[in-house]
This record gives sequence, structure tokens and C-alpha cells, in this order.
Amino acid sequence: MNAEIVAVGSELLLGQICNTNAQFLSRKLAEWGIDVYVHTAVGDNAARLRTCLEIASRRADIVILTGGLGPTPDDLTKETVADFLGLPLEVHGPSLARIEAFFRQRGLLMTENNRKQALVLKGASVLPNESGLAPGMAVCSGGKLYVLLPAPPRELVPMVERHLRPVLEAFAPTRAVVHSEVLRFFGIGEAALAEKVADLLDAQTNPTVAPLVEDGEVTLRLTAKAPSREEARALIGPVKEAILARLGHHYYGSDDDRLPVVVVRRLAARGWRLAVAESCTGGLIAELVTGVPGASRVFAGGIVAYAPEAKRRLLGVSDETLAAHGTISPACAREMAAGVRRALDAQVGLAVTGVAGPDPAEGKPVGEVHLGLALPDGTVRTEALQLAGDREAIRLRAAKHALFWLWRALGDGQ
Amino acid sequence: MNAEIVAVGSELLLGQICNTNAQFLSRKLAEWGIDVYVHTAVGDNAARLRTCLEIASRRADIVILTGGLGPTPDDLTKETVADFLGLPLEVHGPSLARIEAFFRQRGLLMTENNRKQALVLKGASVLPNESGLAPGMAVCSGGKLYVLLPAPPRELVPMVERHLRPVLEAFAPTRAVVHSEVLRFFGIGEAALAEKVADLLDAQTNPTVAPLVEDGEVTLRLTAKAPSREEARALIGPVKEAILARLGHHYYGSDDDRLPVVVVRRLAARGWRLAVAESCTGGLIAELVTGVPGASRVFAGGIVAYAPEAKRRLLGVSDETLAAHGTISPACAREMAAGVRRALDAQVGLAVTGVAGPDPAEGKPVGEVHLGLALPDGTVRTEALQLAGDREAIRLRAAKHALFWLWRALGDGQ
Repeated sequence: MNAEIVAVGSELLLGQICNTNAQFLSRKLAEWGIDVYVHTAVGDNAARLRTCLEIASRRADIVILTGGLGPTPDDLTKETVADFLGLPLEVHGPSLARIEAFFRQRGLLMTENNRKQALVLKGASVLPNESGLAPGMAVCSGGKLYVLLPAPPRELVPMVERHLRPVLEAFAPTRAVVHSEVLRFFGIGEAALAEKVADLLDAQTNPTVAPLVEDGEVTLRLTAKAPSREEARALIGPVKEAILARLGHHYYGSDDDRLPVVVVRRLAARGWRLAVAESCTGGLIAELVTGVPGASRVFAGGIVAYAPEAKRRLLGVSDETLAAHGTISPACAREMAAGVRRALDAQVGLAVTGVAGPDPAEGKPVGEVHLGLALPDGTVRTEALQLAGDREAIRLRAAKHALFWLWRALGDGQ
Repeated sequence: MNAEIVAVGSELLLGQICNTNAQFLSRKLAEWGIDVYVHTAVGDNAARLRTCLEIASRRADIVILTGGLGPTPDDLTKETVADFLGLPLEVHGPSLARIEAFFRQRGLLMTENNRKQALVLKGASVLPNESGLAPGMAVCSGGKLYVLLPAPPRELVPMVERHLRPVLEAFAPTRAVVHSEVLRFFGIGEAALAEKVADLLDAQTNPTVAPLVEDGEVTLRLTAKAPSREEARALIGPVKEAILARLGHHYYGSDDDRLPVVVVRRLAARGWRLAVAESCTGGLIAELVTGVPGASRVFAGGIVAYAPEAKRRLLGVSDETLAAHGTISPACAREMAAGVRRALDAQVGLAVTGVAGPDPAEGKPVGEVHLGLALPDGTVRTEALQLAGDREAIRLRAAKHALFWLWRALGDGQ
């Protein structure tokens, strides 16, 4: 059983947006044991969409279309699929009632275009849209399943999460489950990592092992296929163990356990609260940590001390340090970490100062970054980094280095 | 002249990464006047890649493949294209020398797999890889151009920026230029916006006008085709004017002038420095503002006052306010804005406090957000929002509302 994802929208082909829907759907389908062999994106053009439909319906059992369900004239997915399958469109009463209520409540005039959004393919199962007006739908024709979903992710994601699975199960009861585990590493490059597990990469077929560079981190994806999730996990277990025996020092978590998540977890385990002082990362570390639900239990707060004056005033960095070493120095990172720990009455203070670019600062090159870490026992550590990349990359790498370094420190002695 | 982008990599089909390369290439090709009609993504599978190649070479003049140039056995793009075109692979001397030097310098053992990266299609123009080991290449066959690029964006992007254009020009000298301008609006929904310019959307063919929802903002993309960039811009001008006559109140910028950019620009024009106090947005506003190169001239700093204690201690929010109104209140937002302006000795203080979720807090529902803005004349304004969406969406929308509100206030009286 395999699916093809066909995204419809000229904005994709002009590069105005990225096809995140294909990524999200692919993850879900993998979880549900449905192979995805091809993604296609095509513009708001009936003839070209029809060609893509013809090709997709030949090579896939399930064709999932995203986009083109809106009220404007360039939205033509339903019309094109109706024409391709020889099925009429008919008004879906509950969807029309919802659209009418929407306009009534807002005192807006409803146009004929809006009414168009309530049309569905005859015989289709309707997938309710809880965050927008256009319903999704699924229809079986010629032994294939066609699924139509709206393009905005805030509409598509809940629709898929809540309503797609039963439709797919009815069409093709699950036999095999594909289970993946993504091992996350930091502080090692892709080539070095691949080198250390080259034999495992070559030898494995179930699970397969695939390395990937993602946002400055390296991951290994282990993917197993088995009749059940438990059996798939059992196939992954020993291979994961063999990998971690060689690379464990760089491994910090799997799947959605990104750096901020594992940091929050270790802080919670120790019952410590973190305070962050940021210069070149400009609030990114605070933003990453507070992006973790429940972070409020372990995050006291942060100070974005962008100007030297702010470092002095809010963090208590001394005039002597600023005069002798400047703000981009281990001495400044040390005082920032101790200062923010004190200012926010936290157990742990983490500080970052450096040059994100595009221009050098205080005679220091772009990419020079200093970290500071103040711990409950009163000790303060520093670490110096020289990072590569543009402004955005340096900020992200500095933030991740700081989080990984903190995470390791929180594991010391446990 | 049209191109098809074929991405190769099972990680795309498993949803581990998003096809950002297709977005980037599409933008570039649009700039260069080359239409893109289809994107395809296919896994590391020779037979399915070959089918995609057959289809793409029938419908496109230029086939651009990304990915599958790495050293591991699942990298098979070159081999498959060689087989499809009946062209042998041969060692590219300079690339091999570069790879050998890379391993020599690091004292690492070079394997046969690494040597494979120096193979190129016979007769191809080689595109140097300045950030990695795998060279790109372009080869003409049967009147079509085939371009092979590496998958990691940090390798692909500079290769495309520096080396792809001449190869495309040699194959197909540019005749028409496609020029787009993206108009950015805030504080208006897609339907309401489309309603107001419905006649313009319908009537236009050159430029075309297409609405799009992007990260909680609505944009209108105007796309014109003409012999030169200047002529294309001239076609866009009057249509843009007509749109802004109706929607100007919500318009804040075009193209890459995102909210943080226009905020920084207005602050700079006034010679004012901004300080930010954040609760539920957790550093996101500071991060967005400091992401703008040159922000240091106008950004004094930020305080992420996540815990109530931090609001009291660092921002001077009074015990009376906390007791009577709680932290999620206009009164707290007001004191946070005034407090951060004072604490960082800035002209402008911006504050956000609210409930990002997933759970309600202090008896306030998820999505309740209060903004505060302290101005140089001593006045402090507040604004109450009720935002929809999950934690991440609420944080992003709250941050954007705050920036848009600030940007408007900075324009007052000008």
C-alpha cells in the first residue's frame, strides 16, 4: 500500500512557501505503515494538475492532494479531480451551514465564491475542517483512494490528526508498521560520524540506518518494518545499542527529544531553575527553552543584554572587565553567567556572548563566541567557540552549543 | 523554457526533512525567468528515480536533481542519470584532489566511497562545491539540460548562487524576466482581504495577483513577466497602488521587509532604542528583532520575565498589581513595559504577557495576551488580544501583533 502526495499551488513553484505539508503527511503515513514513494508539487493549472493526477493514480494506491480548496478562482483542485474521475460536485449541507454561520456571525456578505467551498465530490467521505471553512474529503474510484486536504497547515494538521486515519484504515487495513527512531548527536560532523558506523550503515537492511545533517546537528535515522510497532522496535534495539557503544558520548536524545527538551528534563530532575544571559543569540536560547511545554517549572527567566551598558546594569559585569577584555571574552561570559544567576535568583546561570556578524566587533572575528555557566556550588565555567556560517547559522549554532554544554554539565556526577 | 526540480532522498519521503532546496531553487529560477511547473521528490531507489527522470525529461527542458551525491551506498543519483542518459562516469581530477587534500589534512583514511564523490558524468560542466566534497554538474543530452546538485543546503545554496546561472544562460539565453513583489499585510484575514480586492484578483493577468496566508500574516504576490526587470516593475506599479488604496492601513512592507525589519527601520529613523519585556513569548520578540543585521543600534536589550518573581524583581511590577490583577493583565503589561524601558534606559519599552498554553494559567484562558508599550513622552498604552492556535502559534502571533502594534505607534505623527 503506497501513497503519493500531490501539492497544488503556484506559490510552491515560485518558492514563496515550502512544502511543509508533504513533510508532515509523510511522517504521519510512515507512522501508519503506508509507504510514500513520490511527492509532487504542481501549480494552479488544471491541465498540468490533471497530468500529475494521471501519473500519480497509475503508480500509487492512495493519492493525497493538498491545496486548491479555497474560495478564489485559482483554487481548482476539486473541479479538476471531479473532471478526472467523472464525478459531479454537490453541496455538502453541514459545510454550507458552517460557512453561512461564519459570515452571519461576522456580519459579512457571503459571496458565490464562498459557497463554492461547501462543494464536495459525490460519494466522498467529508473530513471536517475545524480551523477553517474548506472541508477535506476522500473518495474511492477505480480501486484508488483520492484524498483532498486544504493547504494552510493550521487547517490541514488537525484534519489529518483527527479525521484521516479512519478513512485510510477503511480503505486499506494496516498490515506492516514502519517505525523510525532518529538518534540525535551533537559535537561531531557527519563525515566523522559516518566513518565510525560505516560498517553498520552498509550491513543493515532492517532496520536501515541513514545519516542526516539537520540544523547543524547530525542524526542517524533507524527505520524498521515489521507486523507491529513492538516488533519494529525490537529490530531497532540492538542496532541502536551498537551505535551508541561507539558514539554515545555525542548522543543526547531520540526523535522529538531536541536539545531544549533534554535540558528542561535534566533541570527538572535536579529541581533546578535556569537563568539565561544572552548577547549575540539575542533571546534565542530563552525562546528555545520556553518553547518546551512545562518550561516554566525550570526556567526563571532571561536577560538579553545586547548593549554593553545592559551587561553592566542588569548583569553586573564590571567596568574593569569591559575595559580590559571587552564584551566578547571569557571574562565577560563568566560575569554574565554569575550575574544572571544572581539577578534571577536561579540555581544555574548560562551566558553567551560573541560576534554573530555580518561584521567583526571589538576587533574579534565573526563567529567568535564565549559561553559561561554558573552552577549552584558557586563554580563558573567558560568555553570558547569559533563558529562558521552566516549570522543566522552562528546564532543557532551558538545556542545549540550552549544547550548541549549545559545538558552535559547537568549530567555530571549522576 | 521550463524546469522541473527532482529531489532525491528517502529522508524527504519519511518526512524527516522538508524540501527547502526546491523552494530556494524555485525562487532563483523565477528571478532568472525560468518557469517551474513541477517539483518531484523521490527516494533513494534507482528504479523509481529513473521513472521520475523519464517523466521529467518529457515535460521539462531543464531537469534539476538535488541530492544523492554523497559517499554512502544509498547515494545513487549520478549512477542513475548516467545509466538513463547512456553516459559513462569519469574521475574529475580537481575534485579528487580536493577530496584527497581534505582527508590528508585531517589525518583520516580515505575510503573508496569517498573517491566515488569525485566521479562526474562524461562531458559535464562541473559546478565547484565550496562548502563540501561532492561537486555538482550539468550535462546536455537530447536537447535537455540535466543539473545535479548536492542536497545539504549549505552546499547547494552557494553552488547555485555562484555557479548555476552561467550554465543555464549558456543552455538557454534569457528572454523574459519574471518579477514578483510580495505585499505584506497584518491585522486582516485572508477572506476579508480577498474580498476587498476581488475584482483586481480576477481582472489581472500581467501582473497576476495571488493571496497567501503565511505564518499568521496575509500576503499578496504580484507577478509580472516582461522583457526586462524594469518593465516588469512598471507593470506591477499601478496594480500595487490600486491595492494599497484599499488596504494600505494593513500594509507594512514588501518582499523581505518582514515585521522586525520595518520595526528596526522606524526605530533607527527616530533614533530611539527599544527594550522588550517578555513573558509568554519567552524571548521570541528579542530574537526576531536581533535577527535583523544592524539591530544593535536600536535594541537596548530584553528581559524574559517568565516567573512572577522575575517580573517583580527585574521589571519592578508591584506586589499590588500582582495580587489584584495577576501577571496576565493589562496592569501587569503596563508595568512591565514601563519597567523594562527604565531598567534598560531605553526610549521605548514593549511588553507581552499572556497564556501560550497548553494549559490555562491564573484562571485566564489559553490565548489571552496583553501588550504594553511605554513611549518616550511617558505615556503607556496597553492592548488586549485573544489569540487562537497551539502554543507555538500563540507565541508567534503574540510576537507579531506586538511588533505590528509597535511599528504603527512608531509611525504616529510622522
